[in-house]
Amino acid sequence: MTEEYINNNKDRFLEELCGLLRIPSISTDSAHKADMYRAAEYWKELLLNAGADKAEIFETAGNPVAWGEKIIDPSKPTVLVYGHMDVMPAEPLDQWESPPFEPQIRDGRIWARGANDDKGQSMMHAKAFELMVRTGTLPCNVRFMIEGEEEIGSPNLGRWCREHRDILNADVILISDTTMISPDIPSITTGLRGLTYWEVTVTGPLKDLHSGIYGGAVANPIIVLSKMIAGMLGEDGKITIPDFYDDVMEYSSEERGLLSQAPFDENAYKNAIGVEELSGEKNFTVPERTTIRPSFDVCGIWGGYTGEGSKTVLPSQAHAKISTRLVPNQDFRRITRLFTDYFESIAPKTVKVTVADLHGGQSYACPIDLPAYRAAEKAYQDVYGRRPVPVKSGGSIPIIPIFEEVLGIKSILMGFGLNSDAIHSPNESFSLDQFHKGIATIARFYKYFGD
Amino acid sequence: MTEEYINNNKDRFLEELCGLLRIPSISTDSAHKADMYRAAEYWKELLLNAGADKAEIFETAGNPVAWGEKIIDPSKPTVLVYGHMDVMPAEPLDQWESPPFEPQIRDGRIWARGANDDKGQSMMHAKAFELMVRTGTLPCNVRFMIEGEEEIGSPNLGRWCREHRDILNADVILISDTTMISPDIPSITTGLRGLTYWEVTVTGPLKDLHSGIYGGAVANPIIVLSKMIAGMLGEDGKITIPDFYDDVMEYSSEERGLLSQAPFDENAYKNAIGVEELSGEKNFTVPERTTIRPSFDVCGIWGGYTGEGSKTVLPSQAHAKISTRLVPNQDFRRITRLFTDYFESIAPKTVKVTVADLHGGQSYACPIDLPAYRAAEKAYQDVYGRRPVPVKSGGSIPIIPIFEEVLGIKSILMGFGLNSDAIHSPNESFSLDQFHKGIATIARFYKYFGD
Repeated sequence: MTEEYINNNKDRFLEELCGLLRIPSISTDSAHKADMYRAAEYWKELLLNAGADKAEIFETAGNPVAWGEKIIDPSKPTVLVYGHMDVMPAEPLDQWESPPFEPQIRDGRIWARGANDDKGQSMMHAKAFELMVRTGTLPCNVRFMIEGEEEIGSPNLGRWCREHRDILNADVILISDTTMISPDIPSITTGLRGLTYWEVTVTGPLKDLHSGIYGGAVANPIIVLSKMIAGMLGEDGKITIPDFYDDVMEYSSEERGLLSQAPFDENAYKNAIGVEELSGEKNFTVPERTTIRPSFDVCGIWGGYTGEGSKTVLPSQAHAKISTRLVPNQDFRRITRLFTDYFESIAPKTVKVTVADLHGGQSYACPIDLPAYRAAEKAYQDVYGRRPVPVKSGGSIPIIPIFEEVLGIKSILMGFGLNSDAIHSPNESFSLDQFHKGIATIARFYKYFGD
Repeated sequence: MTEEYINNNKDRFLEELCGLLRIPSISTDSAHKADMYRAAEYWKELLLNAGADKAEIFETAGNPVAWGEKIIDPSKPTVLVYGHMDVMPAEPLDQWESPPFEPQIRDGRIWARGANDDKGQSMMHAKAFELMVRTGTLPCNVRFMIEGEEEIGSPNLGRWCREHRDILNADVILISDTTMISPDIPSITTGLRGLTYWEVTVTGPLKDLHSGIYGGAVANPIIVLSKMIAGMLGEDGKITIPDFYDDVMEYSSEERGLLSQAPFDENAYKNAIGVEELSGEKNFTVPERTTIRPSFDVCGIWGGYTGEGSKTVLPSQAHAKISTRLVPNQDFRRITRLFTDYFESIAPKTVKVTVADLHGGQSYACPIDLPAYRAAEKAYQDVYGRRPVPVKSGGSIPIIPIFEEVLGIKSILMGFGLNSDAIHSPNESFSLDQFHKGIATIARFYKYFGD
């Protein structure tokens, strides 16, 4: 019945997705504010047409949130669907084969900015919901929360959730905004790393000095900063900030075995990024280093003369953007305190240092024995013919741990994207086959979860 | 007689200097090419009016050179005066109290771009020459070579000298383009440091990577570069490049004692640049560290994301501008080879590195037992009532060792500038007292040197 409904309504589903994709709802650009309201309006209509009891557009300090619900029986379980209607900018425009906001169907794919991220993936939820309502198979209550600021870090959604807890009650949050390993190997993302992001400044002399007149007697802030950074990562690949690893969750060898099921080809990995040799923490595999272990990176550095040619200056300042990725159960606020204390303690008296805390977020872990996880597993098994692999992602989606903190609800990351979809890049696309399978998988999730 | 001539012609001397200062001969800006020819023409007339037998303007691949000579007797010694008619840009213009190219006399000083560097200081030589010709006291032959590219590193003068050796023969080169310690403490610069300048690039992955997805497994080129830089300077302040100190001239404790005669106040020095603690090579004083010892500086560094806010990127590249100052008898070409070999040898296999050689020059040392040095010493003693202190400068004037290499002639650096003259900055000025004393000192130099 599920496949039949999808088949009969394929063209309309695609038409409705195209309508959403035509709205250039770019959240980084305030010139598109009106487009965000058009997208919210579009979502409201989508939900009402699909069978929601009610749907509303909520204001926030930033972009609006589209919300809707269908409560079939308050005693039944409730699923809260989260998605986002905003997209990344489409630049560089000249690299697109078809205009980013004029969706095209080619080669079994739909091409447009947002085709996958997240208009395509969130549309699957609207259509699975419609399917269940129309075929009388919706077994539980459903709520939708579609935000307009995911691509700028969801600055207002945490607060909005806190203020609207009453209309967000649910047993699980369902999100499709990640990928699977490949069309043949379904997977569910069960972990995300946390994040810190600091900007440090090392100040030596009050202003840039002549390197001939002063060179040799005055500490060079770039060299001082280099030494401070150099000492942060030991020869064994471990971060040297004292107490940094205190709360790091250690995985049993059994769990590490499970995680190693995801295929990994080191040569292909090296070739793809163009390096001869990898690096990292001793005694951990490459996939472990990027998922269940914390990491330390300098995302940017600058200071002194950076123009063409040679200017012989002993600079006044050097700056760096420093970021760590964190794992359960590291707290990003504690790590920021540890780093700041350490950075200040290792600064020589020849300079002054400051640390600015720019950004941070907790890690997230989804236990694979959660009933909702089991339901998702069965749904993928039905549609893809294979049990999905639980995978940890090295990236961070800070709003997901915030949902847990504010609403007390775990999220299941049922991603249907593929690495080839070029999200955030020119020529973003989404496979129509994945789009249809996604709708079928989501509908099946409800069946297993609601029963 | 000398003082009388200067006194009687004071106003005209100043008028002639003002005429030169009104020409905006900025060598970094090709829009001022015609002004450079006006300045060269001005110099030609100055020399002919002062009594030169001949004067000419020579073309180079860049800006012209003004040349002139008066040969009173080929068997007598010859002095070659070097100066430059080009000036630095005057920006920021809004910080000037009077327009940079409209010279003003205020508070016993002349204010304009080039008032000291080097139009004021080179004009003293033209006027001392005139004085000696008019008063029939010129005891030797004189040649002038006034270039138009000093402020851009004299890129064409070495070649021009090589091609015009026949009209540049001399026993000594006389230059006024440096400072004295103070109006009460005359000094002669007897040493300049050499220089190297490299741009290094460290390349990790082919393009910027997502620091969440790859962080922990891929070497971060900023961290790698930081480690490479950090290792270049030991805890004892010594440069760790192998064989770097091989040729460094070691000064005897007697010589170091002589050099320590120049007054030095460490607290005033630290306060002026705004640092709490100095650094540098163990067992050497601050003035020694900046003059008779080599130094290592990073003049600029950049890589990754350097804009506002946070972008979580594992960058593809990191770059730095690295410079050393060298002392006798270090060869800048050899140091470049040593650095390049070392930098490549310490690069880990996780990255690729390149070193670009941007600039270099030899150090310079003037022996204080040279007859011309003794003559200069006596001249200062006469006018300032005190024997000048021989001082080493930490800076570099690459054309001076080139004169020695190409023409085989030592230079005497008879500077009359003061640190308060703000050369290269807004409100450049030159003390009229120094201007007049400089003319008198130069004329006396000829007396002692020519006799």
